[in-house]
Amino acid sequence: MQAGIAVAAPNPALIFETLLAHQRSAALRTAIELNVFGAIGEGPADAATLAARCSVSVRGIRILCDFLTIMGLLSKQDGVYSHTPTSALFLDPHSPASLHSTARFLSLAEMRTTYDNLTEIVRTGRTVLPGEGSVEPDNPIWVEFAHSMAPMMAPMAGPLGAIVLEGRTSPMRVLDIAAGHGLFGIEIAKQNPRAHIVALDWARVLDVAEANARQAGVADRYQRLPGSAFEEDYGGPYDAALLTNFLHHFDAPTCVGLLRKVHAALKPGGISATLEFVPNEDRVTPPMAAGFSLTMLISTAAGDAYTFRELEAMHLEAGFRRIQAHPIPNSPHTVVTGIAG
Amino acid sequence: MQAGIAVAAPNPALIFETLLAHQRSAALRTAIELNVFGAIGEGPADAATLAARCSVSVRGIRILCDFLTIMGLLSKQDGVYSHTPTSALFLDPHSPASLHSTARFLSLAEMRTTYDNLTEIVRTGRTVLPGEGSVEPDNPIWVEFAHSMAPMMAPMAGPLGAIVLEGRTSPMRVLDIAAGHGLFGIEIAKQNPRAHIVALDWARVLDVAEANARQAGVADRYQRLPGSAFEEDYGGPYDAALLTNFLHHFDAPTCVGLLRKVHAALKPGGISATLEFVPNEDRVTPPMAAGFSLTMLISTAAGDAYTFRELEAMHLEAGFRRIQAHPIPNSPHTVVTGIAG
Repeated sequence: MQAGIAVAAPNPALIFETLLAHQRSAALRTAIELNVFGAIGEGPADAATLAARCSVSVRGIRILCDFLTIMGLLSKQDGVYSHTPTSALFLDPHSPASLHSTARFLSLAEMRTTYDNLTEIVRTGRTVLPGEGSVEPDNPIWVEFAHSMAPMMAPMAGPLGAIVLEGRTSPMRVLDIAAGHGLFGIEIAKQNPRAHIVALDWARVLDVAEANARQAGVADRYQRLPGSAFEEDYGGPYDAALLTNFLHHFDAPTCVGLLRKVHAALKPGGISATLEFVPNEDRVTPPMAAGFSLTMLISTAAGDAYTFRELEAMHLEAGFRRIQAHPIPNSPHTVVTGIAG
Repeated sequence: MQAGIAVAAPNPALIFETLLAHQRSAALRTAIELNVFGAIGEGPADAATLAARCSVSVRGIRILCDFLTIMGLLSKQDGVYSHTPTSALFLDPHSPASLHSTARFLSLAEMRTTYDNLTEIVRTGRTVLPGEGSVEPDNPIWVEFAHSMAPMMAPMAGPLGAIVLEGRTSPMRVLDIAAGHGLFGIEIAKQNPRAHIVALDWARVLDVAEANARQAGVADRYQRLPGSAFEEDYGGPYDAALLTNFLHHFDAPTCVGLLRKVHAALKPGGISATLEFVPNEDRVTPPMAAGFSLTMLISTAAGDAYTFRELEAMHLEAGFRRIQAHPIPNSPHTVVTGIAG
């Protein structure tokens, strides 16, 4: 028995809740599709009023809003529904922090239906998607990702920039590998007005990153490098390289190979910064970082949510030193840095 | 602001967890399909050992078992997985309290895929299933229900029997409407050796109930009444009528009509006992009883999880008096009784 951990009594409710957990995802998807959170944003209202605002049935909206309330995504008082702090900030489409696009990405049918094959995937140990799964060349899902996941990733950009720059304002060249929406490289360019960014990703994904760079006013210091992170010549040498949300798609030897290539493109003393879901060594805490490995099982041939010890070993094998973990507060993400040389 | 309720800080993790909640259902379904809990029952084991026992990949079983551990459905210590009290009692197929068959019923693809239509269902306010949805005549799902849900309902039978009988051991006739697996009527027959049960349900469902009555040794006091609860002549008069997990499928006027018919079949002073998910009047607590209304939205034309006040009003309108709620401890169910007269 593990010391200090109370043994819970047998709890059949946990099993029913787990079997029916898919209802929770469906209810939130539907509420977003029907603009329920926008309708609540017009002011607290009862079911009949909301039904009119959303052009849906009273029975349907009442049961849906009760379910959202049970989940903590709405509040209900005397039959009147209103926002919770969470729904006001992250689900009202008028909020600047709205996660609507992220929710749509995470709800894409092609991502959800893969779970119907989970039994087969556990048998074989790899995605049922063809080839390398989600990391097949030019997979259009990454264009969608670049468009949709920026709101989820935006809060991580500031801290990552600060970790990489440590206040540096001198000229520097930064390679942003698998740039996606580009927010991380763009943040470096914003924090250091003398930083030049080279962004690598599939060409159609870079269109999204470049548009974001223009909007952020850093387009004149933003350069495209379209293609595969494994095949393109990185150029260089660079002062810093970003490797965000990328290593988890591959097995450890592939990660080491890629980190070697990054190492070769960095100046001596240059910094590599990976952003990852990094579970504790027990692989079952904290829940969000540890649970991410299931997404990698579903969508890749050999990816994983790597622990710090595993990431450290990969970096060391690739020639990096001073490997450090920087957990980002209030997020499931950790920045792991290593110094070239 | 509601007095006494702390306002939680905005929590984006709640939104990601909700969007990904369907992973939880998929992971448990797969674990049951692959007999993971049976394999753990052979003794605590690491991923490689479990992979061999279940004939699956090491990567797949490790990530699946980590996910089950995160959900509290397995325990992990130094890389070795073992049962939690909950999984040992309710998920190990060798346990007499195993909920495997219930889990299979709740995981049926035809039940899950209905949630893909939730947006349309909220718009129209009714199931997308044809006709009356799950309560169409002779729907084969109720044969499956009778086979599968007995383990979930068995713990409710003893308390319900005690509430109906109040220690009575004199001869009595009991009508069990929508008998299903038959466990409730059978329990009455077991608690009172002079009780005779008349079980009403579709003929193929009654085959299951009758087999259970034989197994319980009460077949000689068990009579079939095949057909529709709305159309068959109940016979009678009866000392007690059971109406378990049935009213929630219908709108209030239909429930009142049915309760009138039950009332007419009871002797003066006879007792009606319904078993229901009964949420509090706020309709959002407790979570399991309140959340059941979503299942009724999905699967019926006009059903609901009714509050006690609503059930009381229906019973009074049908002629019952002394309407009482008897919550069953440690369960989401409540028995509501009324006296004819």
